[in-house]
Amino acid sequence: MSPLEITSLDVRDIRFPTSLSLDGSDAMHTSPDYSCAYVTLETDSPDGLTGCGLTFTNGRGTEVVVAAVRAFAPLVVGRTLEQITADMRGFWRGLASEDQLRWLGPEKGVIHLATGAIVNAVWDLWAKAERKPLFRLLCDLEPRQIVDAIDFRYIEDALSPAEALELLTAMRGGRAERLAELERLGGYPAYTTSAGWLGYSEDKIVSLAREARSAGFTHMKMKVGQDVAADARRAALIREAIGPTGTLMMDANQFWGVDEAIAAMEVLGRFDPWWIEEPTSPDDVLGHARIRREVAPIRVATGEHVQNRVIFKQLFQAEAIDVCQIDACRLGGVNEVLAVILLAAKFGVPVCPHAGGVGLCEYVQHLAMFDYIAVSGTTEGRIVEWVDHLHEHFLHPAVVIEGRYTIPTAAGYSIEMLPGSLDRYEFPSGAAWATGAQDGAQITSA
Amino acid sequence: MSPLEITSLDVRDIRFPTSLSLDGSDAMHTSPDYSCAYVTLETDSPDGLTGCGLTFTNGRGTEVVVAAVRAFAPLVVGRTLEQITADMRGFWRGLASEDQLRWLGPEKGVIHLATGAIVNAVWDLWAKAERKPLFRLLCDLEPRQIVDAIDFRYIEDALSPAEALELLTAMRGGRAERLAELERLGGYPAYTTSAGWLGYSEDKIVSLAREARSAGFTHMKMKVGQDVAADARRAALIREAIGPTGTLMMDANQFWGVDEAIAAMEVLGRFDPWWIEEPTSPDDVLGHARIRREVAPIRVATGEHVQNRVIFKQLFQAEAIDVCQIDACRLGGVNEVLAVILLAAKFGVPVCPHAGGVGLCEYVQHLAMFDYIAVSGTTEGRIVEWVDHLHEHFLHPAVVIEGRYTIPTAAGYSIEMLPGSLDRYEFPSGAAWATGAQDGAQITSA
Repeated sequence: MSPLEITSLDVRDIRFPTSLSLDGSDAMHTSPDYSCAYVTLETDSPDGLTGCGLTFTNGRGTEVVVAAVRAFAPLVVGRTLEQITADMRGFWRGLASEDQLRWLGPEKGVIHLATGAIVNAVWDLWAKAERKPLFRLLCDLEPRQIVDAIDFRYIEDALSPAEALELLTAMRGGRAERLAELERLGGYPAYTTSAGWLGYSEDKIVSLAREARSAGFTHMKMKVGQDVAADARRAALIREAIGPTGTLMMDANQFWGVDEAIAAMEVLGRFDPWWIEEPTSPDDVLGHARIRREVAPIRVATGEHVQNRVIFKQLFQAEAIDVCQIDACRLGGVNEVLAVILLAAKFGVPVCPHAGGVGLCEYVQHLAMFDYIAVSGTTEGRIVEWVDHLHEHFLHPAVVIEGRYTIPTAAGYSIEMLPGSLDRYEFPSGAAWATGAQDGAQITSA
Repeated sequence: MSPLEITSLDVRDIRFPTSLSLDGSDAMHTSPDYSCAYVTLETDSPDGLTGCGLTFTNGRGTEVVVAAVRAFAPLVVGRTLEQITADMRGFWRGLASEDQLRWLGPEKGVIHLATGAIVNAVWDLWAKAERKPLFRLLCDLEPRQIVDAIDFRYIEDALSPAEALELLTAMRGGRAERLAELERLGGYPAYTTSAGWLGYSEDKIVSLAREARSAGFTHMKMKVGQDVAADARRAALIREAIGPTGTLMMDANQFWGVDEAIAAMEVLGRFDPWWIEEPTSPDDVLGHARIRREVAPIRVATGEHVQNRVIFKQLFQAEAIDVCQIDACRLGGVNEVLAVILLAAKFGVPVCPHAGGVGLCEYVQHLAMFDYIAVSGTTEGRIVEWVDHLHEHFLHPAVVIEGRYTIPTAAGYSIEMLPGSLDRYEFPSGAAWATGAQDGAQITSA
């Protein structure tokens, strides 16, 4: 393989007017326009190889993430893929700890969302250059290479590089068998959130829950939070639709304080939820720990807004969560996701990635399959979120059949979008955002 | 007072090429260009009243914060000061929980830095309209008005509105006496960090430490972290310069992991540091708690990078810190600072605000004086950071004499900058950034 130079970084503001239908609405995000900052790394490859990555956003403010991505561009452009992959840890720290930009985080919020998009684009490029789906590239790397991609700063008191190496080495055998088993079963287990958005009517929720049941989903998630009485009514309807053997999860999207969460789950516990997700602020490690003690045996899940490995480390140390919901681009891309997957394995907490949004399903299928094949060795208590919208904009969309994510086969991280979609939904210049095209959408004034 | 409408929000990218002299250099920020996103709220006031606020940044990436401020503008422009002050809590939550923008935080990083600048500009405007320095406005507000400015979401399990009201009401008497006492003493105690920047030579450090001593400073802070042996050498020099009765603080600026911090303080403890500041990641509540237990009786301080009241709440709950270093614009402006000052009072942790940077000294003098007069009633164990640079750019700069912040007298939050400075240091168009004007400065490529 001859050196592959990254010759330019392009970033675009892509927004879908989902607030028109309230797809994705929850207690804290009542009217989202699902969006992303979309990164393309152009290279000098004779085959025209590009690395693609995105970070999911919610409409207004996507332009802020775009600006952050641009601020990182000088750290990426002009480097070769070989230089980067030869020192993945150094490359990652170079972004996450850039000595002026880190003031804006560090390693959190806008600046870290931007890091995630760029880092994922590099991994997409690497996987494409190796002609492998990302999860295969990860599974084929030597344990030492995985460890060398991780920045252990701030987590070494909980997981040392030597422990990480040991975890990976112990799972080295049996990878081929586990991949075969995944193929035999038709893929990785999925649950659906599509039925339970907060903005949907009760009729729509019931009919969607029934549809999901017939489509093969055994696990279903509903949004709760703003009004416990209304939540209980909707929970009763969904429980009736899926029956006592169906698994129901609840998601409060950070709406409650600690005491409110405990009080609400006393009411909602009678619908037998498998977990309560984001019961309070994602920053409140000690709050989650207290909620978990008080609402047991209902499990506590969080992660889509957990800003970095340092907070995840503490959630594990404090025994604050039962379910680790990594997000592929809230964390600083693949490198930091690897750290959290290994931390979760060490502490024995199952990883059930957050998905939905734009491209998150495409991303996380790779992470869950890597976790199964190369780290945890089991899908027990593990299931990946599935939301059935916006997949039509991807070149190689995630496919769920009979409640399972089928195994991705195309090279890369499955995150490349179709040129036509990028043009149409680019904000504010795309046709989808032309006057009259999106009456009622929450258009930013940026 | 007739209604005062905010007619426009202007935001500028202001950068000082401080990396030329390594002023401000520390273990993690080796070459900072002290900067800010500077907000001006224009009004329809016949007197030309404007509200000014800024958030401190470190050079590259200031343009990202500027973009974030612009995203919030529609929530501010067109409102009257009276509408805002009549529901300060609602106004603050409207910014911090804006339903699309919050995805980029929530309440952390770029989006929260932007919130801080805007919120502070509103308080500056309010104080100017009342013709009072900000700390006087705060001290004169009824306890109920202070409580009504605070968003208790996510902290109510640690501090209820009723408890906050009780704390404030208990300190209601004696305010005039405490203000008189502050006047009698010549202001609020300050310490200096100017001597101890990491990039300075040992000679320069010694001569600056001696100068600080003769200027009346009894407390002095040095930067540590990259190399414990070198830190020990510099600590010995400073200790010699200030004598055994001088108070020395150390600041690692997040350089260490938990175990490294404990090991380093075993070495550096022999120089009798009063506190170790930012020994590790600002996100690591449990890590700080362990470090504090292990390095006692050396005190543990943190706060300049503590992203919001939720992390501060946990630092108190976990007994992780001895010193609470609020930052006036890392937190979401005055409203959230009030929450943290009251949390600190409830948990009995002294507040010693972070300053330096651009405008932080100007800001925090007000916060410390409010804390003394209206909340804690004491300056025992409390001292405010002072860094003697960039003050010449402010209309009413903070003034430290004989180791004390003198009491601000001008109306407002002391954060208004001189028009000439704004023009000269605006990035990239100002004269200070013209080709050749700043050879060697770390110019962003944004």
